Amino acid sequence: MINVGVLGATGAVGQRFVQLLADHPWFNLQTLTASERSAGKPYGKVVNWRLDAPYPDNVSDIVVTPTTVESLKDCDLVFSALPPEVAASLETEIADAGIGVCSNARSHRMDADVPLVIPEVNPDHLGLIDVQRDRGREGFIVTNPNCSTIVLALALAPLRSFEFHDVRVATMQAISGGGFAGVSAMDIYDNVVPYIGSEEEKMESETVKIMGSFDGSEVTPASFGVSASCHRVPVIDGHTIAVWVDVKEPVAEVKKVYANFKSPFSNLPLQPEKAVELLDPPDRPQPRLDRNRGRGMTVSVGRIREGLRFVALGHNTIRGAAGASVLNAELICSRKYL
Amino acid sequence: MINVGVLGATGAVGQRFVQLLADHPWFNLQTLTASERSAGKPYGKVVNWRLDAPYPDNVSDIVVTPTTVESLKDCDLVFSALPPEVAASLETEIADAGIGVCSNARSHRMDADVPLVIPEVNPDHLGLIDVQRDRGREGFIVTNPNCSTIVLALALAPLRSFEFHDVRVATMQAISGGGFAGVSAMDIYDNVVPYIGSEEEKMESETVKIMGSFDGSEVTPASFGVSASCHRVPVIDGHTIAVWVDVKEPVAEVKKVYANFKSPFSNLPLQPEKAVELLDPPDRPQPRLDRNRGRGMTVSVGRIREGLRFVALGHNTIRGAAGASVLNAELICSRKYL
Amino acid sequence: MINVGVLGATGAVGQRFVQLLADHPWFNLQTLTASERSAGKPYGKVVNWRLDAPYPDNVSDIVVTPTTVESLKDCDLVFSALPPEVAASLETEIADAGIGVCSNARSHRMDADVPLVIPEVNPDHLGLIDVQRDRGREGFIVTNPNCSTIVLALALAPLRSFEFHDVRVATMQAISGGGFAGVSAMDIYDNVVPYIGSEEEKMESETVKIMGSFDGSEVTPASFGVSASCHRVPVIDGHTIAVWVDVKEPVAEVKKVYANFKSPFSNLPLQPEKAVELLDPPDRPQPRLDRNRGRGMTVSVGRIREGLRFVALGHNTIRGAAGASVLNAELICSRKYL
Amino acid sequence: MINVGVLGATGAVGQRFVQLLADHPWFNLQTLTASERSAGKPYGKVVNWRLDAPYPDNVSDIVVTPTTVESLKDCDLVFSALPPEVAASLETEIADAGIGVCSNARSHRMDADVPLVIPEVNPDHLGLIDVQRDRGREGFIVTNPNCSTIVLALALAPLRSFEFHDVRVATMQAISGGGFAGVSAMDIYDNVVPYIGSEEEKMESETVKIMGSFDGSEVTPASFGVSASCHRVPVIDGHTIAVWVDVKEPVAEVKKVYANFKSPFSNLPLQPEKAVELLDPPDRPQPRLDRNRGRGMTVSVGRIREGLRFVALGHNTIRGAAGASVLNAELICSRKYL
Repeated sequence: MINVGVLGATGAVGQRFVQLLADHPWFNLQTLTASERSAGKPYGKVVNWRLDAPYPDNVSDIVVTPTTVESLKDCDLVFSALPPEVAASLETEIADAGIGVCSNARSHRMDADVPLVIPEVNPDHLGLIDVQRDRGREGFIVTNPNCSTIVLALALAPLRSFEFHDVRVATMQAISGGGFAGVSAMDIYDNVVPYIGSEEEKMESETVKIMGSFDGSEVTPASFGVSASCHRVPVIDGHTIAVWVDVKEPVAEVKKVYANFKSPFSNLPLQPEKAVELLDPPDRPQPRLDRNRGRGMTVSVGRIREGLRFVALGHNTIRGAAGASVLNAELICSRKYL
Repeated sequence: MINVGVLGATGAVGQRFVQLLADHPWFNLQTLTASERSAGKPYGKVVNWRLDAPYPDNVSDIVVTPTTVESLKDCDLVFSALPPEVAASLETEIADAGIGVCSNARSHRMDADVPLVIPEVNPDHLGLIDVQRDRGREGFIVTNPNCSTIVLALALAPLRSFEFHDVRVATMQAISGGGFAGVSAMDIYDNVVPYIGSEEEKMESETVKIMGSFDGSEVTPASFGVSASCHRVPVIDGHTIAVWVDVKEPVAEVKKVYANFKSPFSNLPLQPEKAVELLDPPDRPQPRLDRNRGRGMTVSVGRIREGLRFVALGHNTIRGAAGASVLNAELICSRKYL
Repeated sequence: MINVGVLGATGAVGQRFVQLLADHPWFNLQTLTASERSAGKPYGKVVNWRLDAPYPDNVSDIVVTPTTVESLKDCDLVFSALPPEVAASLETEIADAGIGVCSNARSHRMDADVPLVIPEVNPDHLGLIDVQRDRGREGFIVTNPNCSTIVLALALAPLRSFEFHDVRVATMQAISGGGFAGVSAMDIYDNVVPYIGSEEEKMESETVKIMGSFDGSEVTPASFGVSASCHRVPVIDGHTIAVWVDVKEPVAEVKKVYANFKSPFSNLPLQPEKAVELLDPPDRPQPRLDRNRGRGMTVSVGRIREGLRFVALGHNTIRGAAGASVLNAELICSRKYL
Repeated sequence: MINVGVLGATGAVGQRFVQLLADHPWFNLQTLTASERSAGKPYGKVVNWRLDAPYPDNVSDIVVTPTTVESLKDCDLVFSALPPEVAASLETEIADAGIGVCSNARSHRMDADVPLVIPEVNPDHLGLIDVQRDRGREGFIVTNPNCSTIVLALALAPLRSFEFHDVRVATMQAISGGGFAGVSAMDIYDNVVPYIGSEEEKMESETVKIMGSFDGSEVTPASFGVSASCHRVPVIDGHTIAVWVDVKEPVAEVKKVYANFKSPFSNLPLQPEKAVELLDPPDRPQPRLDRNRGRGMTVSVGRIREGLRFVALGHNTIRGAAGASVLNAELICSRKYL
């Protein structure tokens, strides 16, 4: 068992981390950090549990520590749900102190020697851990992409057998993506908000890094372009995206590569049976009905049609955040980086 | 005053017609048709008024008639909110009987000699009325496009000063587009439904007819292509669309043509001050805040940025349905076709 | 294993039955009935699965039969999710033919010799099965109450140690209570509908039958009165009720009886650890956060305060419908009626 | 014309004040106050207008001032949308400085010499202004009740011809009651929150003050009791309440007093034709359909039935807040207190 901690354990993503790690077969959850105000108290007393799934009782008595390097001395690996302004320097400190960091924060995603990884898409990018170590870092930072980027990159992965240059994507994103208090009800109820700060830029830059090629020392971004239009809609969980790609192959051929898409792994605990699942009915995927496929780790794809157009969907706080980091950690372990 | 009637006056679009016509300065609303079940009773007794705007009391006592040609003998012009299976033959009969028909039904939109008109976009297509008359029809049929097509075509209209070939549009459509009972709450609450039957086909064919050229005898469709992805979202009224167009001009230039776009008319009662309004704030347009601009007749445009991408919004049951037909009727009158 | 069937297996409650029975340790689900249109086809082909939980694959191949007595010849017990107009005579026929019927339909709930049962509240009323048998019926009909009544009756059960005469209850009921297509989105979105047909009458008559006393031959209704005001609110699942009861004991005493309330059974598979759970936080219970407690079988109670007032909540299609029938069936089996 | 100002003009209630006062026939809106951050800038530049009704252009250029007594020297009367912690001392200062204050804040509502007024319910309580003046105050403070209290008190007003002792009320309150940012979407979407801080206490104490008797020097609270259970539901605007009152008269009699209820005034600009409107259909009132009756100033009542039970509804930010204060100000003017 590997001793792990969660940084920022009381927020929306932090609670998902706790949920996924409470009974994890490989990880021993022993450290939970939060703000100074909560430090010193049992997690069960300070967390305002807002997930609709049951609260894992075995973490209730863990005494919350402040979010500092010192608090993590017994951890081999930590999961970061920190806000970017805190994550930027603290994650560096932690990694330099010899601890592995699997981060959902955006701060280091685009750093040259930090892998931005989705296990089923670019597992080889983990090789950047060696680059970090070569320059003397004892721990490491591994990041997962932004929630909507993960849905897009997984949905594009089966298409890599074809050639394409242009990707256009319109997102319909869930309110949980803004955290528990991030989106006011007056702003989103009976409404669509056609703007999410920095989201389009993240989708455009992160997607090509993930799908870029790694030569053992650096990642060369993929050569296709991404043009995103991001919108918030009144849905609790699950980002839906409408995608156009200039693939020349006929629709039937495209459907085949989706139907045959296989994850390259079979031994990671959180890995779903299908990382990408093709749905047949003409009106799917739908967030309320499909977001929990594969325990929230499957990206559903449907409506593949001329254009080439399709619709994809993924659970933004599981596959798109906490689950992404945990799956990365599982891959890191199975590849003996820990 | 021109004597008018509404066909199918009790449904969602029918009620909007009644609302817009109850106090119209040019039209005298005297005939309301509905199903056999309602015929013979006062409108106020049979309508289940579901609009959030006040019910116009002066129509309460109009006795509802069956939906037949005979019921319309005192009308010069009728507005059709009929379902397509009824509209197909009945609208033809009515027009042949010498009555003008302004129809929101899809049945005749693509007929070669039926104009598909948005006054601010293709008023000259009304010339097809003469083509209908030349072949002996005494009345006429004039149609307005599908609700989401109207938003798209108005949003594209200012761009006609530039050249473009490809239009991609992802819609986020309101539930009122399905009528009062068309969308079940269990289907759309906390959800997105990425499919609306025939909607994509309508947007793709209707847009190029509207924006096509009329040579006095027939309409040649515009040469650009439209690729649509249509989605229902949990919003009461107001269709939001995310658009990509391959315009080469810089964003600043594009903004200028939107800011300067003028309606070619100034004397139609329902015409808004701005048919297309450019909004500056980075997070607009939004359906709840912007759908009622210009009393629901203005299409709002915002987020014009590289790509060329932008977001547009219009009220689907006013500008996108009943209001579209009434504005067409006003144009028809001002052009002396009646 | 007892062979069971579901009558009306494709609707909202029918799908919940299938979900709960697919892997049941005591029941072997072998018969699924639906309309003539679906009969003869595999369930997996005709059901439009709309639950947000995974579809149980092992029922896909069951060939759907028509809803007739003949179709049930291999069943010992059937669960009825039939509409009342069908249930009234068909359930009688089935019971007379020697098959047990656990019904969620309202048709026979108030029949003098039909038990209206909530296992944790009035298990002894099952004795009415003997009354049915004494008059020659070979099978039996056992019913569960209406969804909102179940929440109320369970929430009142701990208070039976005190005396009370008047119960007032205002409900805030979920849209799934109306079935998949029962509530139109235009009716309930951004809205409250303060009327649900017959709901108040059901709550008022059923509650006093359930909480009445059974003397071995008939049920004498409880002597308290119930006055209900029923409202539909925009919530997917979970009925919330605000209750006033004229209990004289102090709040602290009342909280104690809730905290100590125990189910009289411990061996029924679907039984939750707590049938009634007292929640401490001042803003609970809440439907989205608490409806799935005890796998949807726990009724949550909170905000107990002077008045005596409190708020209760239960999952309307699990504890309030399909789960209620299945738990009744489990009790029936454990009591050797089958 | 009376010169007026709005204190706290950029928030949810502040914007409603601006909307109602922009074209008011008696009041000249000339001063708008906000936080230090906004002071010195034109209102049009600092307000983030979030109402779905058009923005009144004629206030755009008013330069916002800080929220201090000095800023108000040209005002005869001010409307307060201040948070209670600011209102407590500042409203006192302003009134002492000779300016009239019509306040929506809760700070002074229960002060012995401050009238808590609904014009159609207790106009005579304005006599407390004389009490304030007798002790040397040159201006005055007049308050309106909490939003849900206003709906309850207006709905009870017609019943004063009967005797009653007990009122029980369950509220289903809109999210706009929490201000633009007060309610997070994650908290209320697909949910009911059965707790609103201090709301029940306000309803219980304010209602009996309003409906109490004034003898020229002090108000004796009404002798009936109010027991409230307050809940937030996913509705934008409009508080719905379910009420029980122990009135002995038959339902038909009760309906008559509602149908005949008349406002005692006829000359106030914001006064609706009917302060309380009885709706016949069995499923009304409903917030989305009825909240705008009487331009948001009418309280709708329906479902009067044995018990005595009924349902009432009012627009919480118009009749329940800004409109309440403005109507009070109109009454104050017509009674020559200004």
